[in-house]
Amino acid sequence: MNVVSVVDILSGHVSKNTEITIQGWIRTRRDSKANISFLDLYDGSCINSLQIIACDKLHNYKNEILRLTSGCSVIIVGIIVKSIGIKQHIEVIAKNIKILGWIEDPSTYPITAKKHTMEYLREVSHLRPRTNIIGAVARIRDTLSQSIHNFLHKQGFIWIPTPIITACDTEGSSKMFCVSTSETQQILNNPNKKLHHTHDAYDFFSKKAFLTVSGQLNAEAYACALSRVYTFGPTFRAEYSNTNRHLAEFWMIEPEAAFMTLDDIIILAESLLKNIIRILLEKRSDDIKYLADKINKNIITILENFSEIKFNHIEYTEAIKLLEICNRKFNNPIHWGTDLFSEHEKYLSEEYFKSPVIIKNSPKNIKAFYMRLNDDNKTVASMDILVPGIGEIIGGSQREERLSKLDQRLQENCLKQENYWWYRDLRRYGTVPHSGFGLGFERLMIYVTGIKNIRDVIPFPRTSKNINF
Amino acid sequence: MNVVSVVDILSGHVSKNTEITIQGWIRTRRDSKANISFLDLYDGSCINSLQIIACDKLHNYKNEILRLTSGCSVIIVGIIVKSIGIKQHIEVIAKNIKILGWIEDPSTYPITAKKHTMEYLREVSHLRPRTNIIGAVARIRDTLSQSIHNFLHKQGFIWIPTPIITACDTEGSSKMFCVSTSETQQILNNPNKKLHHTHDAYDFFSKKAFLTVSGQLNAEAYACALSRVYTFGPTFRAEYSNTNRHLAEFWMIEPEAAFMTLDDIIILAESLLKNIIRILLEKRSDDIKYLADKINKNIITILENFSEIKFNHIEYTEAIKLLEICNRKFNNPIHWGTDLFSEHEKYLSEEYFKSPVIIKNSPKNIKAFYMRLNDDNKTVASMDILVPGIGEIIGGSQREERLSKLDQRLQENCLKQENYWWYRDLRRYGTVPHSGFGLGFERLMIYVTGIKNIRDVIPFPRTSKNINF
Repeated sequence: MNVVSVVDILSGHVSKNTEITIQGWIRTRRDSKANISFLDLYDGSCINSLQIIACDKLHNYKNEILRLTSGCSVIIVGIIVKSIGIKQHIEVIAKNIKILGWIEDPSTYPITAKKHTMEYLREVSHLRPRTNIIGAVARIRDTLSQSIHNFLHKQGFIWIPTPIITACDTEGSSKMFCVSTSETQQILNNPNKKLHHTHDAYDFFSKKAFLTVSGQLNAEAYACALSRVYTFGPTFRAEYSNTNRHLAEFWMIEPEAAFMTLDDIIILAESLLKNIIRILLEKRSDDIKYLADKINKNIITILENFSEIKFNHIEYTEAIKLLEICNRKFNNPIHWGTDLFSEHEKYLSEEYFKSPVIIKNSPKNIKAFYMRLNDDNKTVASMDILVPGIGEIIGGSQREERLSKLDQRLQENCLKQENYWWYRDLRRYGTVPHSGFGLGFERLMIYVTGIKNIRDVIPFPRTSKNINF
Repeated sequence: MNVVSVVDILSGHVSKNTEITIQGWIRTRRDSKANISFLDLYDGSCINSLQIIACDKLHNYKNEILRLTSGCSVIIVGIIVKSIGIKQHIEVIAKNIKILGWIEDPSTYPITAKKHTMEYLREVSHLRPRTNIIGAVARIRDTLSQSIHNFLHKQGFIWIPTPIITACDTEGSSKMFCVSTSETQQILNNPNKKLHHTHDAYDFFSKKAFLTVSGQLNAEAYACALSRVYTFGPTFRAEYSNTNRHLAEFWMIEPEAAFMTLDDIIILAESLLKNIIRILLEKRSDDIKYLADKINKNIITILENFSEIKFNHIEYTEAIKLLEICNRKFNNPIHWGTDLFSEHEKYLSEEYFKSPVIIKNSPKNIKAFYMRLNDDNKTVASMDILVPGIGEIIGGSQREERLSKLDQRLQENCLKQENYWWYRDLRRYGTVPHSGFGLGFERLMIYVTGIKNIRDVIPFPRTSKNINF
């Protein structure tokens, strides 16, 4: 039984006139008057479906083939032939079609062949990978993730799994999820039950436990021993904000490198983005073309130009000047010392530069405690990469490797030294200049797919009140 | 500035007599009477360190070089030369040595060059990657993870990120962590504060939220659309058990494939294990040799034989017979219908077969509801792979694709159909035979490294009361 996939056949990896077995699902059925049916079969291996010719000589033609509807699963034995149709160059003439699974009630099948809105598809997140669009997204995500691993390995980075459950608040953020064992939950469900003592809350871990917002601090410990490491894992924000660009659970890639400066990681980040987008165009051109057709016709040009495009490097101070003199009315006032809002990012990357922008050396007051203090004592060695249409896609910095300066920054941020005892140790013992950045994987996905809502580029999105699958 | 890594030099990728810059940390310093010091430098790029020759012509020889201790960070400019020593074939003659970071108080530096116990090293998890042993573990983990990605991609599997926060209890287990927002935690910290209503407990997601124990059910939704998918992500168990083999947070690889039967995934699992172990031996032989020397001298033979070894396939019913007639006194009684304990697994894989064992078709009562019911109505199409020294390393099954049987199994397990509405949909609409398995990544790590305690093969282990880094 020579089992092959749709992409094997359509890419010409299997010779014509070969008998093959192919398994998948029906996309559409079209019957001609000549007692022949044309079945479009997909199996997820590529965006294109395979045309199957089923004629009435098949023993189950009348009682089964003519009842096939979108979504039915089949196993087909047939011969690969050159197609005489204009839509495809290859097709399969079926010798046997076995139906594996019917659609319970075709009139209520949620994924019909017609176009559905993205909002509707989110309500059937378990079935939406059966659509062309979500299938394309899944393959693109896979290719991107694999090329990120490959790129970083070629640069000598090794993957480390930093902890998901943590006692440490990297960003000094209040938007963290708490983790406890079910006993706690049971107490909550029964508020009349008295807690024996407050430590019940800390149950399993004997102290407050959170879901990580970043693996960076832990990654630094490994970079200060193995030189080049990266994380690739889920991170969390208990953000109630209901936007197109925020998820409560999303994946981040965080390279961290000893002996690298701010400028070194800017070069690394830029070449990472250019490399993976070039590979994406090579490997998933069919999927990208499909998205260009259905979602955003500019996406191919954007991606093709990306590897040649100039990233504009700009100091935070310069960026503020540009925003102050631009005669644009912003909803949020901007002046030196304030953080950029989405509208400012959009102006810079979409209107002023019309290309990616790297903003360097932001004021220390709007940045995390671990960023390296510059000599002006006002700014830190930070960098944020903004891309048109998305805003921030990468944020990074050179880390403060000097213990006295780190302690000063902890104090300024009202953070206790003893909570960062092990992080301080990295500076007490053989400290080195080191830098790193975080790449939001789903932000990258919306950039390369042209899909507007971040909920549509992750299989089962998690946002406030949204945990149905 | 021709910056290279230790592995670049030792592997001969940089020609002799080249001037290079190298950055790293001092492992040891040895001074000869001839006013020459020998520095061993590591940078994490490989297990071996590089010998640096520093002579008293260096301007800072007396006041700095002679004060260097284990852990100091340096940047060295020097010339690569053939070594006249017997321990190394290549060394670097330093022209300049700049000290980047000293050790605050060398007498209290936790990572001295002497041997430390693994228990002690766990207390300094942030510094232990600086040891040879944990460095080797990190590189091995990286190579294994990358070769798992590569192997599965070659087989047409695509990576999907299944959700970490979930409302769904895949294994019907009570050992799940709960997730809530900080407000809940604040209420817990102040037990006198009354909850307004019980739904406060569900805060962010409007329903009970847990940390996933497996991405399988979600992966099935994608396999039933894209044919071959896998997860590679963290999973969680709120296990209080304090053993060498359990973590509260660990990584799993879960391939899930449409149209695959139990036998198909057994073949897949076996060839995955053999493939990645072969690649590990090729790529990380130095690290494996180091571990063989320090931890378990048999490990090289075990791994070298692995690709040739016969996996013994055995029915659960046969396994029980072997255990019943073996005249061994087990602490836990065993008979048909009971789950195997560690002692039984050990007997089968370590004593009886002396090789990996695959136990197939276990009783439905000891297995999860989603496993495919066999025709005997008593067993399910399950498989567990046991390896000597570890026990279960892989667990998998063919999934129940027939809706009526699935509903029967849900009922038998006292699980509510409505909680599995979307999982049932996969059977209502174009159902297909499909199968998958879960590979515990840290279990695999203890197998290939010979390290006894699972806490030593993950950077920052999470167990009960253990969340210090």
